[in-house]
Amino acid sequence: MSKVAVLGAGSWGTALSLVLADNGHDVQLWSHRKEQADEINQNHTNEKYLKGSRLPEAIVAFHNLEEAIDQVEHIIMVTPTKAIREVSKQLVPLINDAVTITHASKGIEPGTFKRVSQVIEEEVPEEKRKGIVVLSGPSHAEEVIQRQPTTVTVSSSQLELAQEVQDLFINENFRVYTSPDMIGVELGGSLKNIIALGAGISDGLGYGDNAKAALITRGLAEIARLGGSLGANPLTFAGLTGVGDLIVTCTSSHSRNWRAGNLLGRGNDLDQVLDEMGMVVEGVRTTQAAYQLSQEQEVEMPITQGIYKILFDKADPKDVVDQLMTRGRRHEMEDLSNILDNQYS
Amino acid sequence: MSKVAVLGAGSWGTALSLVLADNGHDVQLWSHRKEQADEINQNHTNEKYLKGSRLPEAIVAFHNLEEAIDQVEHIIMVTPTKAIREVSKQLVPLINDAVTITHASKGIEPGTFKRVSQVIEEEVPEEKRKGIVVLSGPSHAEEVIQRQPTTVTVSSSQLELAQEVQDLFINENFRVYTSPDMIGVELGGSLKNIIALGAGISDGLGYGDNAKAALITRGLAEIARLGGSLGANPLTFAGLTGVGDLIVTCTSSHSRNWRAGNLLGRGNDLDQVLDEMGMVVEGVRTTQAAYQLSQEQEVEMPITQGIYKILFDKADPKDVVDQLMTRGRRHEMEDLSNILDNQYS
Repeated sequence: MSKVAVLGAGSWGTALSLVLADNGHDVQLWSHRKEQADEINQNHTNEKYLKGSRLPEAIVAFHNLEEAIDQVEHIIMVTPTKAIREVSKQLVPLINDAVTITHASKGIEPGTFKRVSQVIEEEVPEEKRKGIVVLSGPSHAEEVIQRQPTTVTVSSSQLELAQEVQDLFINENFRVYTSPDMIGVELGGSLKNIIALGAGISDGLGYGDNAKAALITRGLAEIARLGGSLGANPLTFAGLTGVGDLIVTCTSSHSRNWRAGNLLGRGNDLDQVLDEMGMVVEGVRTTQAAYQLSQEQEVEMPITQGIYKILFDKADPKDVVDQLMTRGRRHEMEDLSNILDNQYS
Repeated sequence: MSKVAVLGAGSWGTALSLVLADNGHDVQLWSHRKEQADEINQNHTNEKYLKGSRLPEAIVAFHNLEEAIDQVEHIIMVTPTKAIREVSKQLVPLINDAVTITHASKGIEPGTFKRVSQVIEEEVPEEKRKGIVVLSGPSHAEEVIQRQPTTVTVSSSQLELAQEVQDLFINENFRVYTSPDMIGVELGGSLKNIIALGAGISDGLGYGDNAKAALITRGLAEIARLGGSLGANPLTFAGLTGVGDLIVTCTSSHSRNWRAGNLLGRGNDLDQVLDEMGMVVEGVRTTQAAYQLSQEQEVEMPITQGIYKILFDKADPKDVVDQLMTRGRRHEMEDLSNILDNQYS
């Protein structure tokens, strides 16, 4: 059994801690709020994020980062994307022996458009890390806490490290696959938020299941195309961290991105939506990033472009859908096949 | 403008007739029930299948097959899969000049496991047909009748015929893509019903979104694997006729396959379920076909195998899920990548 630090005591960090504790590991869960750490240690609950759930006693919470990572072989980072660079910086002087760093954050760094593993790589010097792993997949934390069947994927440029993290987490309720395509796994978790926004817009316009299925499917082809141009294997987007995660996101009305899209489809503009939601909507930033990346990479992304126009140019959602429906006639797979041909031939 | 025969006046045949009429074509819609043909001609309604919708007057219904295909360049077959061979036989003596035959039936012929285009090919001699096209995709007929945005794919071994059918149907509400992969398009529409059954079983067991997303995604990888071994391009299963159709099917509680699965998950056995539903459940036959095909082709299909055991060996659904969750550790894409490697290298 291992000693593992989990950084970030939100719903997903807490759920992953429970899986690790169920597997017999000692979990040191770091919270940046002292009252939360105290609550976890004293009451074995995390009421703000996982109301009504009792946590295993093998989860010990810390408010001090140095204590949280003391003696651990594994660090699991589950902080929001925007905090990854800062927390990585804080970690550096505290790490003694090299550790395996796994992250479970879905996003691209605003401004730099870097994947989370790239940010960690930049901040944590090579001698302080054995390697970097990503964990992603279709998973509501609320269901993981209830030990409902869940599957995720772990990926790393070093297969043996991905397998080590697979061993750490796998159990009869939590099935872990490995994948060699770290770029695809990281990009899928992030880019899928654009499509969740789009699905919300379609629903908000009052369109039906046909339109939403089309948007999800064609959107998936689009992000696979961008992913391919950035070095991912387009097939990864057909897997758990692509279509799987997308299904969970687009069919759940709890998704912030879907809700924001829904408000946009009903005629609100971006300022009104962000005002009403009162929180960060990851998909908005990701749309901006993907839009710029698609121009740099010269990748055609009509759906992302349409959503971008709705978000930032106040385009009418109905006009955008009309334009998408009346584009030139296409082969369904032309661009994707080209990418695969290039990749596999 | 063309003269087009649509064979089959169920909800989907009637909806496709409306698209053709909207595009200015003369539509000759064949119904095997005389009262239905009369209703369409006199009242311009089809109350049994599309309650409350008014049909364009350019749709003329026939009860006589010979009259229905008189002078047409295109025949669109929208009969149930089990009637395809019989209707094809009836057509042969009635066809004078060679026609393009498009079918929109999702299924595999029971017993022979043949795709619908193969059945048509066997029955209609070469000199009577210009070629065979399939039309498939995520489409509730009820939404097409309301002219809501919908996308479908047409495919044929002859690209120019697929493009001709694309021209016939495409309009601002009904977007048509072409695909060169006829096998993949036909298999996707059929095999997806297995996964819809599985999604219903998962919901019936009371499992959550994580389990359902995993089942859909891993199921998709499985049918892509079988498809690949039968000559399809696995990527087609990530498109409109694969994942797109699956999303529409699995998220709609109107789906017969989902409903049957749900009843199974709640503890009913197959006889009880078929009794209660009082109609054919395509996915049950498709599961049997895919199970046998997977054994012949030596393709690993653990989900299909599990559903087969629930259907035909009275296995307990919960045990089947437990077994799926505790299989050996895997790479997510190993088998699919092998197929693609073989295909593209």
